Amino acid sequence: MEREKKTIELESGAGGEKSNSLISQIRKNFAVSRKWKNMQDDGAVFDLGMNNVETPRQGVSTASNKLVFTTDAFIVDPIFFPGGDIGKIAMCGTINDLSVMGAKPIGIGLSLVIEEGFPEEDLQKIVASIGKVSAESGVPIVTGDTKVTERGKIDKIEITTSGVGLAKKIIGNSGAKVGDVVIASGNLGEHAVALLAKRFNYQTKIKSDCQTLTREIQSVAKYLTACKDPTRGGMAAVLNEIAEKSKVKIVLAENTLPFSKETVALSELLGIDKFSFPSEGRFVATVQPKQAKKALQILQKFNAQAKIIGSVEPGKGVFLNTSLGGTKKIDVPRGKLIPRIC
Amino acid sequence: MEREKKTIELESGAGGEKSNSLISQIRKNFAVSRKWKNMQDDGAVFDLGMNNVETPRQGVSTASNKLVFTTDAFIVDPIFFPGGDIGKIAMCGTINDLSVMGAKPIGIGLSLVIEEGFPEEDLQKIVASIGKVSAESGVPIVTGDTKVTERGKIDKIEITTSGVGLAKKIIGNSGAKVGDVVIASGNLGEHAVALLAKRFNYQTKIKSDCQTLTREIQSVAKYLTACKDPTRGGMAAVLNEIAEKSKVKIVLAENTLPFSKETVALSELLGIDKFSFPSEGRFVATVQPKQAKKALQILQKFNAQAKIIGSVEPGKGVFLNTSLGGTKKIDVPRGKLIPRIC
Repeated sequence: MEREKKTIELESGAGGEKSNSLISQIRKNFAVSRKWKNMQDDGAVFDLGMNNVETPRQGVSTASNKLVFTTDAFIVDPIFFPGGDIGKIAMCGTINDLSVMGAKPIGIGLSLVIEEGFPEEDLQKIVASIGKVSAESGVPIVTGDTKVTERGKIDKIEITTSGVGLAKKIIGNSGAKVGDVVIASGNLGEHAVALLAKRFNYQTKIKSDCQTLTREIQSVAKYLTACKDPTRGGMAAVLNEIAEKSKVKIVLAENTLPFSKETVALSELLGIDKFSFPSEGRFVATVQPKQAKKALQILQKFNAQAKIIGSVEPGKGVFLNTSLGGTKKIDVPRGKLIPRIC
Repeated sequence: MEREKKTIELESGAGGEKSNSLISQIRKNFAVSRKWKNMQDDGAVFDLGMNNVETPRQGVSTASNKLVFTTDAFIVDPIFFPGGDIGKIAMCGTINDLSVMGAKPIGIGLSLVIEEGFPEEDLQKIVASIGKVSAESGVPIVTGDTKVTERGKIDKIEITTSGVGLAKKIIGNSGAKVGDVVIASGNLGEHAVALLAKRFNYQTKIKSDCQTLTREIQSVAKYLTACKDPTRGGMAAVLNEIAEKSKVKIVLAENTLPFSKETVALSELLGIDKFSFPSEGRFVATVQPKQAKKALQILQKFNAQAKIIGSVEPGKGVFLNTSLGGTKKIDVPRGKLIPRIC
């Protein structure tokens, strides 16, 4: 009898612990890359000693000296949802990966894999949506690839966006210090709410929070000690990443959690942990306590729901102080969290 | 009765005229990008006024002043073939897109979309192969993304590679001048031969020509007026692109065509035009006549089959002078050329 072959499981792509393990397994093969020290957080960083850089509508002309490079694959269901579509999410995702590192995006590489028979009208909507994000953010599509595959080789459309950006200073995930406060840029998890509601025919007014974060982050970049957008694996995954990389404990308070009533309700109805709900246009950051008020004031001009949600303490892990006086550990999500929505 | 919806056809992804039309249609939506002048050939070019750049094992330290950025999606069948696999082809494809523009690649972004149930053993082979190309070429994987999708959402595995590179001087496709000679870096189309043979159970010793071209091109870069790797759409597509962009006519001679006997035989057997056969580790270039001999001598050290295959003349289009004294126009491939093999 043949030994059963091990196969890749769905939960290895869900942004939790199994994902990290799959990625480690893959990286073991890249000897050259391991020697390279600048594979950071959401993107790679190259030090440039540059002076003048030609960029479109970005106004980055002097003293930018780091190149940031990132890539992200998007295969989502549904491809159209309240507040956006796969094109918008792909653009925002990559622009945000650059933005949370403190970079200003200067160009996007757009790779489309389209299934034969995909409606032209739907493709048109998606590329119009990509064009809209490009126009609004001022980030051009500078290179791309378009493939069409036989029916059944792909489900409708897959988009991979890659991006390059320039930064004066990189914001990492390892810079959180004891005493810092934790800020959320708005209510979290609403991308998940919009997509899950659509999939389960649940009535809600919540739209995806999908948007670019460059201006928001640039406006407070100098105050941030760590920054990350809670996409796959949600707030649980990113706060654990910051806590682990910064070697600190993060403590949240239940009465200041950044979730709307609708998010809490849908989470309870479906039995899916709201801490694992992805956002596509929000970030969480740590800020030095003296600068927290100033940073918060600026962020609230972009989003009135921006608020302080916790503090950085000595220790490790992420914990929630409940309203009843208890303490609950917030773990990295395990297993298949939710349907593939980002 | 509902009007029938227009859908995307398979041939729109085959690298021929329909592909160009689909890409134009997509680009119409990108207003910001149209204002941006540096979307070139196989990648985007950013002017950097830089002096010192930290790069891994590349030795590019001074006077590099252009950033080249490119992306490419790979969904191929079969994923393992004589001479390589989807991982090797994805790495070589992106490294070569940078290389044909005269750039030295400094980092690769690797995005994997894997179908649930894909054998771990196969994934291991593919990532080992990616690691091997990385090690041999000295180009690190610097960023990436790994997604796992439900069964049926993708066929086995899709890889999108993006890359950044640095160049002192960009080699374009528009620089060919009347009087230049056309050089092929070796026999062409053997990636197609290897994959088609495997798919149709045809016996051949030909292996895919899949390899990186950085060293080869860098060694003759100063002599080249235009350069391109004949992947999708093969030699027919790339020579037409050079002729069109350079506003010249390219004339080939039948007795110096860069095809092996096996390639010609398989082309005839399957009734697929050999001029449309993709290579994944070859290039065609135009060279000033005075420097042709020197360039050819250097290239023949890498590949004994490197040879002069034609000349650049006033006019437009690509033509073949046949052995019988006739002339045949070589058009951009139309329709579905061959199964998806690159």
